[in-house]
Amino acid sequence: MTKAAADLAVAEIGSFFVGGVQAVVSGLPPRSLTLVPGSPPVDIDPNGRFVAGQMYVQFVRLTERRAAHPLLLWHGGGVTGATWETTPDGRPGWQMAFLRYGHDVYVSDAVERGRAGWSRYPEIFPGEPFFRQAREAWSLFRIGPTEGYADDELGRRPFVPQRFPHHALDALAKSFVPRWSGTEALAVAAYERLVERIGSCVIVGHSQGGQFAWQVALRRHGDVRALILLEPGGVPDFDGLDSERIANIPTLLLWGDHLETVPFWAATHRRVREACDALAAQGADVTWIDLPQRGITGNSHFLMMDDNSDEIAALVQAWMISRGLAT
Amino acid sequence: MTKAAADLAVAEIGSFFVGGVQAVVSGLPPRSLTLVPGSPPVDIDPNGRFVAGQMYVQFVRLTERRAAHPLLLWHGGGVTGATWETTPDGRPGWQMAFLRYGHDVYVSDAVERGRAGWSRYPEIFPGEPFFRQAREAWSLFRIGPTEGYADDELGRRPFVPQRFPHHALDALAKSFVPRWSGTEALAVAAYERLVERIGSCVIVGHSQGGQFAWQVALRRHGDVRALILLEPGGVPDFDGLDSERIANIPTLLLWGDHLETVPFWAATHRRVREACDALAAQGADVTWIDLPQRGITGNSHFLMMDDNSDEIAALVQAWMISRGLAT
Repeated sequence: MTKAAADLAVAEIGSFFVGGVQAVVSGLPPRSLTLVPGSPPVDIDPNGRFVAGQMYVQFVRLTERRAAHPLLLWHGGGVTGATWETTPDGRPGWQMAFLRYGHDVYVSDAVERGRAGWSRYPEIFPGEPFFRQAREAWSLFRIGPTEGYADDELGRRPFVPQRFPHHALDALAKSFVPRWSGTEALAVAAYERLVERIGSCVIVGHSQGGQFAWQVALRRHGDVRALILLEPGGVPDFDGLDSERIANIPTLLLWGDHLETVPFWAATHRRVREACDALAAQGADVTWIDLPQRGITGNSHFLMMDDNSDEIAALVQAWMISRGLAT
Repeated sequence: MTKAAADLAVAEIGSFFVGGVQAVVSGLPPRSLTLVPGSPPVDIDPNGRFVAGQMYVQFVRLTERRAAHPLLLWHGGGVTGATWETTPDGRPGWQMAFLRYGHDVYVSDAVERGRAGWSRYPEIFPGEPFFRQAREAWSLFRIGPTEGYADDELGRRPFVPQRFPHHALDALAKSFVPRWSGTEALAVAAYERLVERIGSCVIVGHSQGGQFAWQVALRRHGDVRALILLEPGGVPDFDGLDSERIANIPTLLLWGDHLETVPFWAATHRRVREACDALAAQGADVTWIDLPQRGITGNSHFLMMDDNSDEIAALVQAWMISRGLAT
């Protein structure tokens, strides 16, 4: 690669918060807290007005954008925007890949995740969050069979073929953050504010983020110029939707390997397929790719971290070019 | 500014996680959770092995670095690395300022904050976190007097002069994340791993991050080439420290205005000053700047967000140049 190609001419790197509502907490007893070790404790009143349901968005704007619209990268459940950055085994991720392709890239942390912060529960957020462990990730994300997991990475036996850098599973586990169930409406509301703020855009959504992207695209179909859904975690509610609204949004879906090993993914793959077939019957522009059927085998749920992540990014870029969204 | 000066030639933007230990949770009852609305609930076993105490680090590496060492920006308590990005009122922050000055910049999220994630409590993390509200930030960060706060931004009466963009306090509040008391040792351990990984570096630490930077610099004095402490939240434990170790690390301290309005800051300013006087008496290279004494009045605790944030960055850069750390 020549030096000119290796450099990235950046106009600005920055961030902002979007969405959020005021929430009032009352009736809790005061508590005493030592904020600085060695200093006397201070009295804290846990009651008052808090902001809740905001999300965090980081952008990298190029000096010469070659893509038609900003590219929004929306992560999945239990992780943050770090999903799109360096892979667990240290290779440049999709944020860099699409910057190099000439897109302005917006990487966000959904409501409750990462830099978006989270709120007191059960007073503001519902119930309690859950925490993901490496063992669960191993099977749920289809890195290997349940019985192939071991706490010691040397003892792990992944699926063969397996493209996720499975020796770096513990690095992936460091990127896990707690997640709630029941905050979906807050997340979608903040994502809607994001799209409203950006205007015309292309959304890449992974897993739960794919489902969110779909929902938001249907609400803001004038702004969302394309949807790229990487193993979306579910389908949105299409009830009452007119077909023109759908046909305006070209949609690409990508699926990895070993889906049949996890009932959740087997069922989701089937359910999303049915929804897409119905959309296509209404005239929607839907491109469905099962990677194994193209001879690309061994991909995990984290397509953008697998050892062929650049190849898959190139496939996405080619699709965007075919739809006039990139050059 | 010419176009060439406005562009930033970036080699790579990326991130990694560092630090962290394995923690085992046992004896908790299983729970049932609906991960995807509309899908049947799944049984979750909350017991098992989790990673805890890791931190998140994002880097921007330039193609032509003009500074001697990477610059590490460490945020304060109850916030994340977003502190260093765009200011609450939308101006480029210190991440951009020091990139433009030619530094490779590493912005991190400390243990328990932002993209670093957090762990189940009280099983892994101690006690429960606390949540900061705008009202508390208004007075603690010296934006205005307690009685000058109002929930409606139009009703707020800040200190005069006041350089924090006080009409954007609600935007600042969206960047607050819960914080614990009692996780300091975990945070320092992860920061130590970070410095070990980076090697020679200059650390800019704000508030609690300044205190952490000081502690880590004393442990890894061979790597830390300079310390820039913005209103550090306290002093490290100097017991048993040899003066040579300190004298090797040039240190700049910066303080804003209205310190006397908050007992915590008045006492901390005094306590840190005493520690610095003792260090200077041992031959350490300590530069102490009370901004009001230079005629720069009205700065809040968030110096890097105030309306003269570029001016203060320039002051820091000039000090680094004077110490041979930048050009």
